[in-house]
Parts: sequence; C-alpha cells; structure tokens
Amino acid sequence: MAALFRASRNLLQRCTRHGDVALASSRSMASKTPVGFIGLGNMGSPMAKNLLKHGYPVIATDVFPESCKELQDLGAQILDCPAEVADKADRIITMLPSSPNVIEVYNGPNGILKKVKKGTLLIDSSTIDPSVSKEMAVAAEKMGAVFMDAPVSGGVGAANLAKLTFMVGGVEEEFTAAKELLGSMGANVVYCGPVGTGQAAKICNNMLLAIGMIGTAETMNLGIRLGLDPKLLAKILNMSSGRCWSSDTYNPVPGVMEGVPSANNYQGGFGTTLMAKDLGLAQDSATNTKTPVLLGSLAHQIYRMMCARGYAGKDFSSVFQFLREEEGQ
Amino acid sequence: MAALFRASRNLLQRCTRHGDVALASSRSMASKTPVGFIGLGNMGSPMAKNLLKHGYPVIATDVFPESCKELQDLGAQILDCPAEVADKADRIITMLPSSPNVIEVYNGPNGILKKVKKGTLLIDSSTIDPSVSKEMAVAAEKMGAVFMDAPVSGGVGAANLAKLTFMVGGVEEEFTAAKELLGSMGANVVYCGPVGTGQAAKICNNMLLAIGMIGTAETMNLGIRLGLDPKLLAKILNMSSGRCWSSDTYNPVPGVMEGVPSANNYQGGFGTTLMAKDLGLAQDSATNTKTPVLLGSLAHQIYRMMCARGYAGKDFSSVFQFLREEEGQ
Amino acid sequence: MAALFRASRNLLQRCTRHGDVALASSRSMASKTPVGFIGLGNMGSPMAKNLLKHGYPVIATDVFPESCKELQDLGAQILDCPAEVADKADRIITMLPSSPNVIEVYNGPNGILKKVKKGTLLIDSSTIDPSVSKEMAVAAEKMGAVFMDAPVSGGVGAANLAKLTFMVGGVEEEFTAAKELLGSMGANVVYCGPVGTGQAAKICNNMLLAIGMIGTAETMNLGIRLGLDPKLLAKILNMSSGRCWSSDTYNPVPGVMEGVPSANNYQGGFGTTLMAKDLGLAQDSATNTKTPVLLGSLAHQIYRMMCARGYAGKDFSSVFQFLREEEGQ
Amino acid sequence: MAALFRASRNLLQRCTRHGDVALASSRSMASKTPVGFIGLGNMGSPMAKNLLKHGYPVIATDVFPESCKELQDLGAQILDCPAEVADKADRIITMLPSSPNVIEVYNGPNGILKKVKKGTLLIDSSTIDPSVSKEMAVAAEKMGAVFMDAPVSGGVGAANLAKLTFMVGGVEEEFTAAKELLGSMGANVVYCGPVGTGQAAKICNNMLLAIGMIGTAETMNLGIRLGLDPKLLAKILNMSSGRCWSSDTYNPVPGVMEGVPSANNYQGGFGTTLMAKDLGLAQDSATNTKTPVLLGSLAHQIYRMMCARGYAGKDFSSVFQFLREEEGQ
Repeated sequence: MAALFRASRNLLQRCTRHGDVALASSRSMASKTPVGFIGLGNMGSPMAKNLLKHGYPVIATDVFPESCKELQDLGAQILDCPAEVADKADRIITMLPSSPNVIEVYNGPNGILKKVKKGTLLIDSSTIDPSVSKEMAVAAEKMGAVFMDAPVSGGVGAANLAKLTFMVGGVEEEFTAAKELLGSMGANVVYCGPVGTGQAAKICNNMLLAIGMIGTAETMNLGIRLGLDPKLLAKILNMSSGRCWSSDTYNPVPGVMEGVPSANNYQGGFGTTLMAKDLGLAQDSATNTKTPVLLGSLAHQIYRMMCARGYAGKDFSSVFQFLREEEGQ
Repeated sequence: MAALFRASRNLLQRCTRHGDVALASSRSMASKTPVGFIGLGNMGSPMAKNLLKHGYPVIATDVFPESCKELQDLGAQILDCPAEVADKADRIITMLPSSPNVIEVYNGPNGILKKVKKGTLLIDSSTIDPSVSKEMAVAAEKMGAVFMDAPVSGGVGAANLAKLTFMVGGVEEEFTAAKELLGSMGANVVYCGPVGTGQAAKICNNMLLAIGMIGTAETMNLGIRLGLDPKLLAKILNMSSGRCWSSDTYNPVPGVMEGVPSANNYQGGFGTTLMAKDLGLAQDSATNTKTPVLLGSLAHQIYRMMCARGYAGKDFSSVFQFLREEEGQ
Repeated sequence: MAALFRASRNLLQRCTRHGDVALASSRSMASKTPVGFIGLGNMGSPMAKNLLKHGYPVIATDVFPESCKELQDLGAQILDCPAEVADKADRIITMLPSSPNVIEVYNGPNGILKKVKKGTLLIDSSTIDPSVSKEMAVAAEKMGAVFMDAPVSGGVGAANLAKLTFMVGGVEEEFTAAKELLGSMGANVVYCGPVGTGQAAKICNNMLLAIGMIGTAETMNLGIRLGLDPKLLAKILNMSSGRCWSSDTYNPVPGVMEGVPSANNYQGGFGTTLMAKDLGLAQDSATNTKTPVLLGSLAHQIYRMMCARGYAGKDFSSVFQFLREEEGQ
Repeated sequence: MAALFRASRNLLQRCTRHGDVALASSRSMASKTPVGFIGLGNMGSPMAKNLLKHGYPVIATDVFPESCKELQDLGAQILDCPAEVADKADRIITMLPSSPNVIEVYNGPNGILKKVKKGTLLIDSSTIDPSVSKEMAVAAEKMGAVFMDAPVSGGVGAANLAKLTFMVGGVEEEFTAAKELLGSMGANVVYCGPVGTGQAAKICNNMLLAIGMIGTAETMNLGIRLGLDPKLLAKILNMSSGRCWSSDTYNPVPGVMEGVPSANNYQGGFGTTLMAKDLGLAQDSATNTKTPVLLGSLAHQIYRMMCARGYAGKDFSSVFQFLREEEGQ
C-alpha cells in the first residue's frame, strides 16, 4: 500500500513540476506514513527522535541494541536489519559512520537493497565518498528505488535542536519529498545537484574550513610572537581581508571569544578525528578527479598528526594549541 | 623653529593624555606645518597628493625625477635627497618598495638620519620586515627622533580615494600625531602596539588572506570537478563555516561575482608579485621567531611558482586559474 | 589435468620446504605447461614475449585485438576473454593499468574467477592499491586459487631485456613457483611478505623516489641561483649526506650527467603521469592506514600540477625544469 | 712583519699560479706563523687544538673565559677581543653560532675589522646566510683583507679527529693558502667558487639531507603500516631508486642498522635544532633568490615543530619517532 502510494506520489510529483500544485499538497498531507531510520548513533538518534516529534511513525534498526531501546521507548518500531526496514517503509534515512558501513547497510546480505520496494526514497545522511554515493544510487535505481545523498553540517547540538543543515544531491524531482522529511530534522535543506553533490558540498566546505582554521591558528600565533595582542589582532583581521569564519566566529585562541571551544579548553565542538576523516574524503575525491589541492593535502596531514599526538578528542580549533607549544631550552 | 614646535608638541601631547583637551586642539590647529614625503611611486604619489589636498605643505623627494615633477606642479617643494627633507620638515612620511630601500633612505649617506632634527616624527608606510622597523626605531631614537611603522592595506585605488587602512606601530603617545596626518590619506588608522606591530598586523593579515584565497581556489576547483555549480557552491560556503573574505567578497572563480578581478581576467587588484613579497616577509618573521607556519610557507611557495609561470602581473586571485588547468591528453 | 598437476605441485612444494629437493626439481621440469597472460600493453607485451622465448606456451588475451595479433604471430594462442584463459591455464599473469581494470579482469562477468581452476596460481604485476590486491586474494582463495601481487620496477626497456625487478607479495610457499615464471621476465624477484606487500614495497620506493627527485631538483636549482656550478654541486652532494639516487644516478639538471633523460630534453624514462598515479596510490594507502606523509602528499600535489602544465609526457625528472622557470620582468 | 710577509705571500702565490712551484713551497715552509682563532665552542675548541697539534702557534679569544682556559693550557695565547687577535695574526679562523655573532665579531666595536692588517686571510667556518658572508667579504676587502667562507660538515666527532669537510668560497687565488690551514682540521677541503658558495653548498646539502631523511622516515613508516618488515624494506629501497644516504647509511628506524643514532634512542648525531637552523638559512636564501623550494620549506616547518615538541636535543633522524606515534583510542 505504501509502495503503491509512493509510486503514485512520483507520478504526482512529476505532474507538479508541470504546475499541478493542488495535487502536490494533497501528497504532502498523506505523508505521515512510516519512515525507516537506520543508524542510531550520536547523530542518528536525535534525528530519529525529531521525526517522531513531528508525528512520523519511525521504523528503525541499529547494530547496537541499546541504541534501539531508547527509541523504542519513545514509540518507534525496532526491526532486526536494514532489509526488514526496507520491507516496511518506502522512505528510509540512513546515518552511518563511513563508506564501508553504508555499503554494508545497502548492499550487504541483510541490506536495504535485498528487499527495497519500487519507488522507495532512500536518503543517506552519512558523510562518505561521493563516488560511493553514486554507486549506491546506481544500485538503488536497478531496484527501482531512488537514492539521495544528504550529509549534514551542525554536529550533535544542532541534531538535538533540529537545526542541522542538509546538503542534498540527487534527482531534482525528488528534492521536495526529501526536503519534507529533512525539514523535520534541520533548519536548512539545500539542493546541490545530481547524486554525490551533497557529499561534494560538505567535503568542500570542510576542506576550506580546515584550511581557514589552521591558517587562522598560524596567523594568530605568528602575530602574538611578533608582539600583537591577540584580541586586537583578531579585530584587525576581522575588519580586513584576512577575515574568515575561523577568525570571526570560532576563533581558536583562548581569551579572544566566549562561547567557543577555545574558551573551554577545546572541549565539545567538532572533533579533530572527524575533521581528519573529512579531509581524507576530500583527498580521495581530489586524487580521483586529479585536482591539485596543495593546502587541502597539507591540512589533512596536519590533522592526521594531531590525531596521533593526543588531540583526537579535542575540537579541531585546538590546532592553535598544537602549533603554539614553545621551543624548549 | 619647526623643531622647537615639534618638541613642545610632544610635551603638549603628553599633557593631553592626562586630560588637557584644550591644548591638544590648539596643537592640531597649528599642525599645517610642512610634511616631508619620500617615495613617490604608485602608492606614495596619490598619498602625497591627498596631503596637499588637506592643506599640508609637502616637501618631497624621490629617485625618479619624473615622479617629482607631477607633485611639484601641484605645489610641493622638491628637494634632492632624504637628508635635505629631514633638514626642512619635522614630520616625514616614507613609502618605499622594500627593506633595503628603507635602510638606504634612513641610514644611507644622504639619508634622513644624517640631518634629522630632535623630535621629528618619522612614519614609514612601506611594507617591510618588522625587525627592520625596529632597527630604524632604535637608530631614530639615538638621534632624538621618533619612528613609527604604518603600513597600509587597500591598494592604489584606495590610495587615490584616501580610503587606505593604516596599521600603526610605535610609542602610543605619538599615535594621535600620526593619526592626524594619516587620516588625510586613509579611512582607518589602527593602533597596533609597539614599533613593528603595524608591520606584524599587515603581514599577518596578508598571510591569512593568501591562505584563504588559495584554499578558496582549491575548494571551488574541487567542487566544480565533483559536479557542483560554482555559484551554488560559493553560496553554500558563504552560509557555512567555509566562509571567508576570498569566498564572499573577492571570489576567484570567473562568473561567480561581479566587480572583482576574476570577472575581468584577473586585471587590477593586488598583484601576485606583491603577495609573494608579503609572504616572504611573513616567512622571514616566522623563521626569526621560530614560529611554525605550515600553510603560510606553502602559500608562499605557491605564489613564488605563480610569479615564475606568467602570473606575476595578475591579481592574486588568479591562483584559481593557475590550479585550474586541466590535465592534457 | 593441469589443475590436478597444480594441486599436486602444491603438495610437492610443501614437501620441498621440508627438504625434498628432488621432488621440487621434478616439478620444475614439468613446468613448461601453458601460462596465461592478460594485458598486452607496453609492459605486458614484451613480458609475454620473454615467456615465449623461455619456451613457455602462452595463452593470452587483451581488449585490443592489435596487441594480440603480434603475440599470436610469435606463437601464442589468443582467446576471447580472461575467463577462457582461466579455463585453459593454471598459471596466469596479469599486467593491467589500474585497480578498476584488475577488478574487472578478475571479478567481472567474463573474469578469471568465473572459470578459475582450483590450485591455479594468479600473479598480478599491475601497480595498484594494496587493498585491492588483498581483496583479489580473498576472492581467489574462495575459488581455491592462489593470488600473488608482483608489481615491477624498471620500465619498458627493462621489460624488453628481461631485466625487471619483481616485488612479490603472497603466501611464502608459492614464492618459488612464482619466481620460476617471473625469472623469465626479470633480473630480480624479491619476496616481500603477505599479499599486498609487493605493492606496498613498490609504492614506498616510488614515494621516496619522488621526494628525492623533487628535493634534488629544488636543491640544484637553489645552488645554481646561489652561484654554484651544477656539476660541482652534484659532486659535493654525492660525496656528502645529501646523496641520493636522483642526485648520483639520474640527476635532473641538464649537463650534469650523460645518458639520463635530463640529457635528452626529458624524453623517455619514467613519465610524470605514471609517477603521479603511483603517488596517488601512496596517498590512498597512507589515508587508509592513517599514516602521516607530509612530504609524500606534497610530492603528489606537485606531480599533479606538472601533469596539468604540459609535463605529463616528460620524464619525472623534468620537475627541475618545472621549478626552474625564471620569474619574468 | 707578518703583514709584510702576508703581502708578499700573495705576490708569491700569484706567481705560483703561473708555474713557480719552488716559491710556493718556500711559502708553505714559512707558514707556521701564528694563526688567530675566534670562537672556542663545541666545534671551534677541537679545531683550534688540531691547529696546535700541527705546530701552528694559536692566538685565540672567546666570550667565555672557561673555553679559553683549556686552550691556554695547551699553549695558545689568549687575547681579550677579536680586534686584538687581528692586531697579532694575519691568518684568522672564526667559528661562531650564527649570522649576528659573525657580524659582531667582524664589524663590532671590538671586531676584527677594527684592527685587521692588509693582506690578512680571514676564514669563517660558521654556518650562516651566504649573503652575510658576501657582506663580510666586501667589508674585509675595503680594509685590504681577504675573506673566505668555509663552513664544515661532520660534527663534533669529526672535529676531534680532524676529519671535517670544509666547503670553501672565495677568491680562487687564496684557496691554496686556506687549504693549508683547513687541512690541519679536516679530511676534505673543497673549493666551491666565489665568496658565499661555501655556505651555499653546505645549505644545499643539508636541505636535501633533511628532505631525504623525512622522506625516508615517512616511507619506512608507511611500509611498516602496510605490513612490510623494516629491514626488508630498507634493503629493497637501497637496491632501488628510493636509495639515499638516510636510507642506506643513517636509517632512522630502530633495529635496521647498528652504530647510528636510531640504534641509540636518537642520542648524539646531528641535533634537530641545528637542522632547523640550517633549514632556516636555506629558506632565507630561497626567499632572497625567489627560488621555489616546496619540499625544503615543508621540511623546515617539520623540524620547527619537532623542536617545539621535545625533539630539539635528539638527532634529526628522530623524525621517524615524531611521525610514528600511533593514533590513540
């Protein structure tokens, strides 16, 4: 029944694109059918809760039973594996740690694609290699399903508050359907282009973020060594062409700003390990597309070294501390 | 006479700091005594003209007679060498291409310090090594004069429109006196701290600017190769943590913004050679202070290579073009 | 029959390891059974010819019919696809351009593993990601076959002269069998350890080679700019701690050595594109194993840029020329 | 009298170059006139002792009285300052930590050039910026003296054993005279070209050495992580194109070689701080000559970071340990 609805939904939506607004809004009202959710980790768990809050029945699964229990208590139905979820829901969201997990959850022996129904909308919010997203989309299409990549920015705090930003790649006709669901979990849902471009946008942003953060840390450190007051230097940069998000919103130097990880011993925020992972994806994408990324590569190596030197669990702005250590006697 | 005035001006100013506003304003009215100006290049020439416009008698010199001629026609007095200027003016501004020129103009056989009068205010707006600024300050102090470094940001356009930003290092008591003069040539005059910190602020800003620009170019190029529309990618970055001046105000990708060098084949703007020079200064400062600047060093090397490959005369945002070239067959 | 032989060969060899030399030599005499060869490109073609020269019947295939024709004229049997080769030969050598080709030739719909016989020895001499080698080994093992990676160093010239060096990874018991075949095509056959370590050794060597070459080019260029005669500088480096293969055997500066690509406008030798590819593999391996390779990453980026700037077809020592260009007026 | 001798010595030597061997050898016999030595640190002290051993009367000075005492006990005459040494000796060797010390010892108020005699041979064995060497040569020439740069490689051990290598820059006519003295303290004396080229050769060698060492460390670490045995990997590299001094003579991986710092917890050898200093000089030279040194710059930054992280006192091969640390949980 849901599958049928979904199939007709596609038809409707295609009509809509030619102007039939009335039909589109009727589909929207019918949309509180069950939503599948796979991957109930630090990010996935609050995301699934927000779906429940918005009145969506949720059918979920995760490899860790404890993660399932909490959601079950809030009213979700828990199933044994991705294949079973695919058997029950025609809209499924996945939120997983890395490419191999995504491949397993979609293509594995108990994976979604073993039982996915024609017309099912599959939205993957994991941050993975865009080329893996494209492979999943091809595999889904063979089964008559639609795959979209929709990685997030914003972290656990934003996930809890339904303030995430989703960067969505996939067939444009499906974006409205995806946006309806993702809007329950985030504040911004941005359409980026064909499958893989959601990942591409996320990876690009984080590569530039890492470069800007390390650059800010090097610059602030150099300025301090040259005798400048850090607050004054930040002020000068922020009114000049050196300005960037890392200098004006998330300054890595303790004492310059309040309410940022540098004001709290680099606790919380966006972990160095996660940044290293995203930079690894950026590097892979650059290697595959033969794109020179000199600063991006070096930023990757720097975060890699930090992970090995005790900064893995700190916010990525701790690169200031990493660079800061004074030479000994 | 001027020397005397200047000596008393210092006294007055010190009083001012303890609250004597009335005296300070009387000094300000008396201040249209001659101002020396040494270095009438692309930047120095419009700066000196703005001093004339504001009613300051200007006594100038330059190694190129042609540069002097134009200013002379506008009413400036032209002398043969820096020493002669120092003999006539007790406030002197210098605007020179590099450290060796500054050393020559101050310490050379016909240099300022050969005839500088006690109490003279020396303001150097060249962008040079902060350690050279400090040396000049020490040398000036031995002669009873005061040296401040006041490098600018803003380029020839801003120099013409008196919209420069001055970053000023030196004794804080003299800042008001410096600001009065510099205010005729710029829109912002920022006090940065002791001698050399003006240079430090300029160098720091430009290092972070270069890192942000190369980072933006790498990121935009990677995104485009991954299938993203450049305008959309810029929009996403600018609403996210990848945002920086190079992405939101001076985007290096043709077609993304209007009115920037990338929209005009990288004509005008801030030349790659100048950026390479400033990054060389940043590198020197970092080496001297044993400060690690990994991205800053690599940015320096990249602009160095660009200079050698035909980009010397283009705006520094042409790094996008430099990185962009597709691999051949 | 061949499969049977092969199975018993394994038994024999295990005995051999416990000392039974007589049996081992009888296997060796029986060894001129047909050898499969897949991939008749610039490298594969002369390799296959050397097998023929040594009296091995060769059963070959390639996607390009022209490549097959020449070998057929020399007495090889040509079949339509890898699966058919696997049906006829119990020792197969593959020599392919990159990981995706290897995956296709082994795992594709007409791939080797569709018809491979139990006990078959599969030797892959392609240079690919060690993790792909490991996957192939697992897949081969499932079919009862043995997979070894055996990438080469030495180029087309060495392939023609049977002077290649093979770096072999795989089960140690099979090394003797592999060495027998590879010895017909190369001068050195080195056992490196478990599957994937042949690739690892190749990748490691080439990463260090690239670093040494770029380092030599930078150093020679710097020395020349500082007034040193290049021949003298090379001599000093080569008697000191700066010595490396790129300085003493393959110097990148024209006029320093004879008989190297730098003496011949960087024609011939090891192409920049191939080096960029190998550095991409090194980068992938480093990312996967979370190993910091700062110079290795930057070397990769430099060869990437060279490929985009007209150096793709030149020997990799042309990095000297790339760095050398003088800054313009 | 000595000055006179020295002046005639120059004449003699010029004759010698036109064939008068007899006169040259008579000068050589006359050469055990006093030699000045300034800078009695870890390197200078054993060097001066070797001069004494070879029968040269030594007239020395140093800022640390203790350093002088030991040499005095061995027969050297100790004076108060460089100027006094210059007053007594017409051949002077200086061995100082850095450029500012050299400038002070030559140009300072009690410096050599205050009392240097016409025809004096000044040999500076410090490792400093080649541009400073050139300045000193110009200043010496004004006083009628001859300045040569002659930095060493080889460390304290080689200094004790008179096994240093000297790289000598300066007027070629004076090389024989310099070689006579330097030969008492070293095993190799290499003529490099005009003034400054001795420094250039030293700096170039050490830059390539640093690149090779870091490259070897990265490569060995990557290979180990990929499953290769370190001794085997070193063997493969050393018979292949990855070979370099750091892989085959001074391998940074503990357990691969004996008798090197990596076999002794990175004690002894060539300290990381000294390498960082030399790379700073290489960077300065590259910046001044607008030479791109991408790997050289990054190597400098890596040793800079190591200095700040507890590796300052270890041998520079400890970069393997620096890169090696495993990522934590």
